[in-house]
Amino acid sequence: MQKKLRIIPLGGVGEIGKNMTVLEYGEDILIVDCGLIFPDEGMLGIDVVIPDMTYLEQNAERIRGMCITHGHEDHIGAIPYAMEKFRCPIYGTRFTNALIRHKLDEHHITGVTVTDVAPKETVTLGCFSVEFIKTGHSIAGAVALAIRTPIGTVIHTGDFKIDYTPVFGDAINLSRFAELGRKGVLALLSDSTNAERPGFTMSEKSVGKTIDSIFAEHPKNRLLIATFASNVDRVQQIINSAQRFGRKVIVEGRSMVNIISIASELGYLDVPEGILIDASQADRYEDDEICIISTGSQGESMAALSRMSAGTHKKIRIADNDVIVFSSHPVPGNEKAVSRVINELTSQGAEVIFQDVHVSGHACREDLKLIYSLVQPRFAIPVHGEYRHLAANAGIAEELGIPKDRIFILHTGDVMNLTEDSAVVDGKVQTGTVLVDGLGVGDVGNVVMKDRQRLAEDGIMVVALTLDKKTHEILAGPEVVSRGFVYVKESEELMDEVRFTVREAVKDSVGEGFVDWNRIKTVTKDMLGDLLWKKIKRRPMILPLIMEAQGK
Amino acid sequence: MQKKLRIIPLGGVGEIGKNMTVLEYGEDILIVDCGLIFPDEGMLGIDVVIPDMTYLEQNAERIRGMCITHGHEDHIGAIPYAMEKFRCPIYGTRFTNALIRHKLDEHHITGVTVTDVAPKETVTLGCFSVEFIKTGHSIAGAVALAIRTPIGTVIHTGDFKIDYTPVFGDAINLSRFAELGRKGVLALLSDSTNAERPGFTMSEKSVGKTIDSIFAEHPKNRLLIATFASNVDRVQQIINSAQRFGRKVIVEGRSMVNIISIASELGYLDVPEGILIDASQADRYEDDEICIISTGSQGESMAALSRMSAGTHKKIRIADNDVIVFSSHPVPGNEKAVSRVINELTSQGAEVIFQDVHVSGHACREDLKLIYSLVQPRFAIPVHGEYRHLAANAGIAEELGIPKDRIFILHTGDVMNLTEDSAVVDGKVQTGTVLVDGLGVGDVGNVVMKDRQRLAEDGIMVVALTLDKKTHEILAGPEVVSRGFVYVKESEELMDEVRFTVREAVKDSVGEGFVDWNRIKTVTKDMLGDLLWKKIKRRPMILPLIMEAQGK
Repeated sequence: MQKKLRIIPLGGVGEIGKNMTVLEYGEDILIVDCGLIFPDEGMLGIDVVIPDMTYLEQNAERIRGMCITHGHEDHIGAIPYAMEKFRCPIYGTRFTNALIRHKLDEHHITGVTVTDVAPKETVTLGCFSVEFIKTGHSIAGAVALAIRTPIGTVIHTGDFKIDYTPVFGDAINLSRFAELGRKGVLALLSDSTNAERPGFTMSEKSVGKTIDSIFAEHPKNRLLIATFASNVDRVQQIINSAQRFGRKVIVEGRSMVNIISIASELGYLDVPEGILIDASQADRYEDDEICIISTGSQGESMAALSRMSAGTHKKIRIADNDVIVFSSHPVPGNEKAVSRVINELTSQGAEVIFQDVHVSGHACREDLKLIYSLVQPRFAIPVHGEYRHLAANAGIAEELGIPKDRIFILHTGDVMNLTEDSAVVDGKVQTGTVLVDGLGVGDVGNVVMKDRQRLAEDGIMVVALTLDKKTHEILAGPEVVSRGFVYVKESEELMDEVRFTVREAVKDSVGEGFVDWNRIKTVTKDMLGDLLWKKIKRRPMILPLIMEAQGK
Repeated sequence: MQKKLRIIPLGGVGEIGKNMTVLEYGEDILIVDCGLIFPDEGMLGIDVVIPDMTYLEQNAERIRGMCITHGHEDHIGAIPYAMEKFRCPIYGTRFTNALIRHKLDEHHITGVTVTDVAPKETVTLGCFSVEFIKTGHSIAGAVALAIRTPIGTVIHTGDFKIDYTPVFGDAINLSRFAELGRKGVLALLSDSTNAERPGFTMSEKSVGKTIDSIFAEHPKNRLLIATFASNVDRVQQIINSAQRFGRKVIVEGRSMVNIISIASELGYLDVPEGILIDASQADRYEDDEICIISTGSQGESMAALSRMSAGTHKKIRIADNDVIVFSSHPVPGNEKAVSRVINELTSQGAEVIFQDVHVSGHACREDLKLIYSLVQPRFAIPVHGEYRHLAANAGIAEELGIPKDRIFILHTGDVMNLTEDSAVVDGKVQTGTVLVDGLGVGDVGNVVMKDRQRLAEDGIMVVALTLDKKTHEILAGPEVVSRGFVYVKESEELMDEVRFTVREAVKDSVGEGFVDWNRIKTVTKDMLGDLLWKKIKRRPMILPLIMEAQGK
C-alpha cells in the first residue's frame, strides 16, 4: 500500500487560538505549534483552554519533534501541558524559544530539549525535514515552515504579514517562497486571519511615524502608550521616539518588563543607556520629560493601564495633562473592556488617542494573493482564523485559480490523507477542548460548567435537615441558607415559608417505618422550586442535604 | 430668591442606555425619557437594569408629565417600573406610544394616560411647554423636544441623525432648530453617540440601494436579511426590494412580527398585499422566490437567526444556497456573539454579507456641527453616549465657539442650576442602578452579585453536620456536597480528606461543656480553604451548615 501523508489539525480550526497541527508519514509524527486560547465569557472560572492531546499521548513514541512558528500564546501556550503528557524535542527561533523556556520554568518543567533554529536552517525529524523561513508578524522571530516529506513539500506560513521595511532584521524571505513554488509545493497552509480585509497590510514602520507625530503634537503632556508586550518592534519604536524627543521611559506591567528584558538580552531590542527610569523616580521629572510604556491595551482588568484608570495603580495616577495612546486594536471580544478603560481615562480628564496607532500582524487579501501566486500549491488548506476567515481565504485561493476540489477547510480532528496528486478527508481522531482551572487540567467538565452557569444566573438555596433514624422525625433543621439568590435579611418571611414547605415535603415522604430519601429530595426540590417561582419568579439551584442521626 | 431651572440626569450619563433626564422649575417636574439598559456580562442572572428613581418617588406629586423622544428600549424600557412607583401622564409620538402601550400591557399595568403628540405640536406641563420637533433616527417617530421654561428654551435632541431623504415621512425639521436658535436657546442637550466619527451620517435610503444590489447579484439564492426589528424604514426597504425582485417575504422572530404588525397598522409600513407568507409555506416556493427577514442581527442567542445558525430553528434550515445579510453593525459588546453566528452560518456553507449594509441612526461630527451652528445655545450639555463620546461632543461645542465654561459633562445625579446667564453644578440627588431579576426590582444588591460572581468562578462546597446538644459530638454528617467546583465522582479521595478536615475543625472548636459555633464555622472555612488551595489551587465558596439535636 502506498504511504500517505496525513495532516491533522488538533486545535484551532475555526477559532483564533490553540493552534496545533499534526503531520504524519509512516511511523513519524511532526507537530507544528502548541497553543492555548483564553476562555470566553461562558467558561466560568476557567484559566485557559488547551487542545485535547489524547491522540498524541497515545502515539507518543512516534513523535519526532515539535516546530514552533512564533511565540504568541495561541502557538506556544499549551506546551507545558503537552510536556506533562509526552516529551519531545522543541524547535523554534531564538526569541520564540526564550519565551518557551520562560514558560516551562514557570510550570517547573525541566528536561525538555529546546533547540534554537535560525531562518534558512533545516532540521531533520524522522522522514521530515523542516526548513525555517523568515516571515514577519507582530512578534519577533516569526517563521514559516517548509516541510519536506517523502511525497512533496508542505508550507505552513504560521501567522504572518508581508513587511518590506521591518523595524528589525530582514524582511520576509519572499524569494525562498518563490523558489519552493517553482520546484513544486504539494500543500500550502496559510494564515486566514485577515482574509476578509481588502488591500495590503501596512508596514510596522508606519506606526513609528504616527508615534513620532503624537510626540511632536503633545510637547507639554505626559505621554502614556499602551501596547502588546510581545510586539517588540512596537516597543522599540516607542523607545526611539522617546529618545528623539528627549523623554525618559517608564515601563509598567509584568509582561512588558519581562519581554523587554528578554528582548534586550537577545539583541532584538536596542534600549539606549540611561533612558529607562523607575516609576518611583517619576517625581524628579516634568510631565514633558516622561513617556510611560504599559500593558493593558486590551482593557485586561488586571493590567497596568486598567489599574491606573481605576485609580488602583500603586505608582501612577492619571491626571488631566495625560495623553494616553492605545497602540493596538481591540481583539474581538475585548471591545467593551477597552471602551470601559477609555471612558474611565476620559472622565478623569485625560486625552485618549485610540485610532490608527496600530497595524495588523496578519496578511490582508492582496498579500495572500501574492503568497498563493509565488507558492502555487497543488492543495490549499486555509488555517488560523474563524470559519468566516477560512472561507474568505478559500475564496482567494479559488480566485487565484486553484480548483475548488483542491481547497480544504478542515475541522478540528479531521484526518486529511495526501498523496502526490490526491487529497481526501476520511478520518477523525479524538479532539476537543480541555479546560484548565487551577491545577486541574480537564477535570472541569460539562456538568461542573453547567452548574457554574446555573449558580451564576440564579444562585443556590441549601436546605439541610437531620432525621431521627428510628422515628423519622426531624431532629434538627431545616436549616436554610442561600447564596447569590436573595439577601436573607430582606426576606425573613419568605424563609419562613421555605421552612414550612420543606417540613411539608418531609411529611409527604415519610410514612410508618419508612423513609423515601430520594422522594424527600425530589419533593423538596419541586415544592420549593414552585414556591420560589410563584413568589419571586426565580429558579435558584436547590440543594437538599438530608442526614440521619440516632435521636434520644 | 430668583427661581432656577434644575437639570438632573437620573441615568444614562456615560453609558449607552437607561436615559432619563429631569427638568425642574419651582414646583414643576418634567421627565424626558425613561429607559433601561441590558446587563453586561458581570451582572449575572440580571434581566434588565433601570435607573434608581427614588428621587422621583419622593417628589411624585410634583411630576407634571413624561415626554418620550422615541421608542427604543434605552428610552422607554423603564416606564413600566416607573409607573409602579409613581403615576404621571406620558407624551410621545404615535409610533413611540404604540410601543409604550404594548409594554405596559405586557406588565399588566393599566390606567396610565398615554397621549399622542404629533411633531410641531406643543404640550403644556406646569410651567413647561414642550414642543415636539421631527428628527430622524433608526426607529420611526423620533423627535427632539424644545422645552420652553420661564427662563429660556432648552432643546433636547434625543437620539437623532440628519437624513435629508428619509424613507418615510418628512425630513428633520432643521428650519425649526434654526428659528429657535435665532430666538435664543438657553441650553442644548445633544446626542453624543457618534461624536467621535468624522463626516456625515449617510441617509437610510443608501441602504436600500445596497439591498437592491444584493438582490440583483444573487438571483438564484435564498436570501435572508437580519436587522433590528424597530428599524421600520429598513424593513420597508427590504420589503420593497423583495417586491421589485418578485420574491415572497417570510418574517421570523417575535419582535419582528410584533413591530411589523404595529407599524403596518399605524401606516408607518406599506406591506404589499399577498407578499407575506408563513415559513410553513416555504416548501411551495423555490429559493429564488423567497426573502426571509429575521431578528438576530446582534447575535442574540435566543433570536431567530441564532436558532437557525445553531440548527435549532423549528421551520428554517440553513443550506448552502443561502445568502445571509447582516443589515446592522454590532453594538459594542456584541462583536463576539455576532462573529459566532457568522462562523456557524459560514461553516454550514452559507454566504454571509455583513459589511456596509447598514447606516447609523446617530449624527456624526459634521452633523453635530450643523446643529450647534443652527441652535447656538448658551450652554452645551452633551448627552447619550459613553464618556469618550460626551468628551468628543464637548470638543465639537468648543470648536464651534462655545466657551469651555459653558460646556458641561454631567454625571448621573448631578443637579445643574441654570439662570438666564449662569450655570452651576452644585448638588446631587440619589441615583444609581437598580437591578431587575425576575419579579425582584432592586433586591439583588452588591452582596448577592458578588456571591454570584464567586459561585460562577469557583463553585460552592457545602458542609453540613449535626452536633449533639449535650455531648457536642458529631451526631450526623459531615455531609459534603459541591456544585460547580469539582465533579465528586472523580475525587472520592479528596472528599475523604475534606471530611477528615471538617472533623478536625469541629474537635478544635468544641471543648468540655462548650461549643463555639462561630469558631466551628471559621475554622472549617479556613482549614478547608487551605486544603483545597493546596490540593487543587481552587477557592470555592465554603458554606458550613451546623445544626444541633438531642442525641440519645
